[in-house]
Amino acid sequence: MSIAIIIPDRNLDDLKQRLSSALPNTSIEIWPDIKHPEKVEFAIVWKQPKGVLAEFKNLKAIQNFGAGVDAILSDTTLPQLPIARIVDASLTKTMVQYLDGVISYYLLRFDTFNLQKQSKLWKPKSPRRIKHITVLGIGELGKAAAEHFASLGYSVTGWSRTQKLIDGVECFYGEAQLSEAVAFADVVICLLPLTPLTTKLLDESFFQYLKAGSILVNVARGDIVDEDALLKALDNNTLQAACLDVFSQEPLPPTHPFWQHPDILITPHVSAVTDINAVVDQICENYERSQKGYVLSHLVDVKRGY
Amino acid sequence: MSIAIIIPDRNLDDLKQRLSSALPNTSIEIWPDIKHPEKVEFAIVWKQPKGVLAEFKNLKAIQNFGAGVDAILSDTTLPQLPIARIVDASLTKTMVQYLDGVISYYLLRFDTFNLQKQSKLWKPKSPRRIKHITVLGIGELGKAAAEHFASLGYSVTGWSRTQKLIDGVECFYGEAQLSEAVAFADVVICLLPLTPLTTKLLDESFFQYLKAGSILVNVARGDIVDEDALLKALDNNTLQAACLDVFSQEPLPPTHPFWQHPDILITPHVSAVTDINAVVDQICENYERSQKGYVLSHLVDVKRGY
Repeated sequence: MSIAIIIPDRNLDDLKQRLSSALPNTSIEIWPDIKHPEKVEFAIVWKQPKGVLAEFKNLKAIQNFGAGVDAILSDTTLPQLPIARIVDASLTKTMVQYLDGVISYYLLRFDTFNLQKQSKLWKPKSPRRIKHITVLGIGELGKAAAEHFASLGYSVTGWSRTQKLIDGVECFYGEAQLSEAVAFADVVICLLPLTPLTTKLLDESFFQYLKAGSILVNVARGDIVDEDALLKALDNNTLQAACLDVFSQEPLPPTHPFWQHPDILITPHVSAVTDINAVVDQICENYERSQKGYVLSHLVDVKRGY
Repeated sequence: MSIAIIIPDRNLDDLKQRLSSALPNTSIEIWPDIKHPEKVEFAIVWKQPKGVLAEFKNLKAIQNFGAGVDAILSDTTLPQLPIARIVDASLTKTMVQYLDGVISYYLLRFDTFNLQKQSKLWKPKSPRRIKHITVLGIGELGKAAAEHFASLGYSVTGWSRTQKLIDGVECFYGEAQLSEAVAFADVVICLLPLTPLTTKLLDESFFQYLKAGSILVNVARGDIVDEDALLKALDNNTLQAACLDVFSQEPLPPTHPFWQHPDILITPHVSAVTDINAVVDQICENYERSQKGYVLSHLVDVKRGY
């Protein structure tokens, strides 16, 4: 029996070495150099070429190498096997740290002062008034973000597809309550999973729910936002600014209008990157669970898409 | 008896009204419209015209309307009276919030990504390695900043003129220990008072104490830094970046080279502005102390200059 790592375009020596020393009796192979496909019982996968998993006839379980499973689920030839995703504390900590920095950036008006610098303009301004934060998507990451900002004294609202309860956070759910969830937000943070239901959910009619001059932060997936509608919302001042870490097309093409928009902060998909060191334990546990026939930890509900 | 407010170029209606309702039996007058100078026993002062206090023959005490007393002490005709300064929790909180946002800004490389945006360059990078923070000046504000970053898990060093002790912070003091205090700093935060001893303390020889690629944050006074030496340190990569909230000349003149330097974040003296609401209580207490002949709260040591 063996484990296949199917993660294109990344140096995997460190991951392979760590797994080998944690699981000394198991062969770890890196795709596409798999000597005995029939021996592969567990696959660690990230942005796999479509159809690649079909060759592993004895595969028992799939470990997604990250939190978001939209890439893996977009493979229509995916075998019907249990899929687990990574839910690691360091990923959550990194995301909360990123969001905390973004809120400080806007609170302290670093965007405004950077623009003023370009015009050599000295014009002191008080901190921005940011009191109310709405988090769209209150799964692992969204819940941690909502709780963090609530603990700092912000008024925090959460929204999710199904009903959830978080201490100190006003929670709404379902499409019918989306407008109410964002109506008072100074900042809207998008942490939704990308599913057929959330694709382009943040479209022209969504932006009409926002109060004038709010700020959008998207750290989920680019395709959740209708990028043309976003530009329109910035231009008619529904949004005063947007911080985008994810885009419909990545890398963001040089011709994309976002690059030149003064009110968009662009970060190149850095808000939460899986840390190899931190997730090896979780992968090993799931490998052992799959070998023993136990339910995987952080199992994905394929129908819901997360 | 009366109180004179001597704060040029600011709307003081709100301050006057708040003081009047807190001290209903005391006349509050705004300079230069002082009807009976001989009745003034208490002066609230900020950036006063030199010599202006001499006309108040019966003045008993001076309340500086802020934390920094360099402006008031630069008046060589200042009467020899007790001077108090504002030490308010909201000022401290605002300053710590600003510094926290600056550290996040550099940690998350918002500076780098903003520069990359100008070249439409998509190049993901891990967060900056910021582990060690040195705070120069560990008075009220500096101590709060040092304690804040120590509580977040940073390795924090403090430096001051006289010996001080702060739990969880390695403290150095005196000019002889300055080089050791900054030798390992990823970020140096300047919160020193401006005195004859600290004027241009951060000069060419100071920058030679720093490790290559460190970051300077100045939120104290512009004249503590030799601005030419700072530019040189940026150009030879002793500093990889500087965040400056204060300058030798404010507003920063349009011809100043700082405006065009890509590695300088400029904020227009906004890191901690006295909040009128928060300080009225402190002023009233000091007025009553001066009336009763008690020592003022937050008395300034004129010889030390803070």
